[in-house]
Amino acid sequence: MFESKIRVRYEETDQMGHAYYAKYLVWFEIGRTDLMRFLGHPYSGLEEKGVLLPVLEANAKYMRGARYDELLTLGSWIREIGRASIAFGYRIKGEKGDLVCTGGTTHAFIGRDGKILRRGLEFLEKLRPHVEILE
Amino acid sequence: MFESKIRVRYEETDQMGHAYYAKYLVWFEIGRTDLMRFLGHPYSGLEEKGVLLPVLEANAKYMRGARYDELLTLGSWIREIGRASIAFGYRIKGEKGDLVCTGGTTHAFIGRDGKILRRGLEFLEKLRPHVEILE
Amino acid sequence: MFESKIRVRYEETDQMGHAYYAKYLVWFEIGRTDLMRFLGHPYSGLEEKGVLLPVLEANAKYMRGARYDELLTLGSWIREIGRASIAFGYRIKGEKGDLVCTGGTTHAFIGRDGKILRRGLEFLEKLRPHVEILE
Amino acid sequence: MFESKIRVRYEETDQMGHAYYAKYLVWFEIGRTDLMRFLGHPYSGLEEKGVLLPVLEANAKYMRGARYDELLTLGSWIREIGRASIAFGYRIKGEKGDLVCTGGTTHAFIGRDGKILRRGLEFLEKLRPHVEILE
Repeated sequence: MFESKIRVRYEETDQMGHAYYAKYLVWFEIGRTDLMRFLGHPYSGLEEKGVLLPVLEANAKYMRGARYDELLTLGSWIREIGRASIAFGYRIKGEKGDLVCTGGTTHAFIGRDGKILRRGLEFLEKLRPHVEILE
Repeated sequence: MFESKIRVRYEETDQMGHAYYAKYLVWFEIGRTDLMRFLGHPYSGLEEKGVLLPVLEANAKYMRGARYDELLTLGSWIREIGRASIAFGYRIKGEKGDLVCTGGTTHAFIGRDGKILRRGLEFLEKLRPHVEILE
Repeated sequence: MFESKIRVRYEETDQMGHAYYAKYLVWFEIGRTDLMRFLGHPYSGLEEKGVLLPVLEANAKYMRGARYDELLTLGSWIREIGRASIAFGYRIKGEKGDLVCTGGTTHAFIGRDGKILRRGLEFLEKLRPHVEILE
Repeated sequence: MFESKIRVRYEETDQMGHAYYAKYLVWFEIGRTDLMRFLGHPYSGLEEKGVLLPVLEANAKYMRGARYDELLTLGSWIREIGRASIAFGYRIKGEKGDLVCTGGTTHAFIGRDGKILRRGLEFLEKLRPHVEILE
């Protein structure tokens, strides 16, 4: 699991006084981006090589609302690798270590034309040793 | 099912050339807001009465990316009503009627202090006849 | 001036209870997009022809905060046309006709390589008769 | 001037391949929040005391588009203090030190009822020594 720090922005709050529910998916993206960079395969580099990771599925469970200016800890890991897909898991904790949100996303591993790329598959194989079972 | 029209904003696209995956949850919110207004219980009125609907869970499946300026049709319906919770279903179609995305959200029905409110429960009962089984 | 209707989304509010200040720029984009479509030159068509309109400058004055679910009226017009640039003006009114926000954006009219395009300039000339002095 | 680091999020890009123009205003908010925290007056604390800083005016000039995953340096400073208002200046530089964007925001210093607060004015006086003339 790789840990990122997320400071809740004022823009991310809504009038209920907590972070808006779609913002957690934006944070998940920061988590998987940080994870990929940490594993030596920054996402910006992948895209330059023509490999895209469009989202196939996303889900989140919300335990409590994140507050403005709160410093969250977001853990991200590779949950599963399929034939041409990758699944990430996420866990967000508050400043006191309490669980704020959990979630997951699944992504296709394709080229700009929507087709499976050999170099995408080779790349997926390199990530396979990093799969973690955390739930 | 209530249908809303959503025009994809430039702001909602990302450099992959499609709508960013978290934006669909923003559209889901528009869908359930329109549905509640249509059923005679606008969400803004609920909040004024002290009833909040924080999200407990959200999920989405993406069939294809929505494009800039595309006019989407978002169908929203009440999927289930629990003791103090409500679940909505969503289905987004493109201009040619093809399926773009499906999803769901579950919400608590509580007061500002996080507790279950009697008038929230009474309100939920009024919505029960509108539950639809669509999947 | 072309008028668009904007319904304030829950996502657009912040914990101060009004629409977040950057969201007005998103609405300005909707206004100029609607205006260009109305004038027969949809922005999506321009981009397909390789003409981009990156923003050079943006400004906004806020008279009062827009509220959740409020139905705003956004007026957009072409304020000025330069050699290879275009300036739009915007005016947002509330449901009772009171002024909520005014603003402006200036855009370059260039190709994907950042250079001025002959067909961009020809296109600008077609817009010149639509310049309005409204302030 | 206080410097913040901003990593451009994928969510912040648009299909032109750069950060969307309204996102810079979100970054400005991070800059002034960091500056206020650095000066010992975190914005979250101000709000708890009933002092709000709604935006009266905002502007930005864009020199070039910020790219996905780019690590920007955002400088923020107090530009001016009025009777019941405060103006901030912002300057964003790219990884090579080139200028990406400059801007400013002006904020009222008021209570929840929209009126000027004595403790807001006292607070403004404490910030006066930190005004910087940088342009």
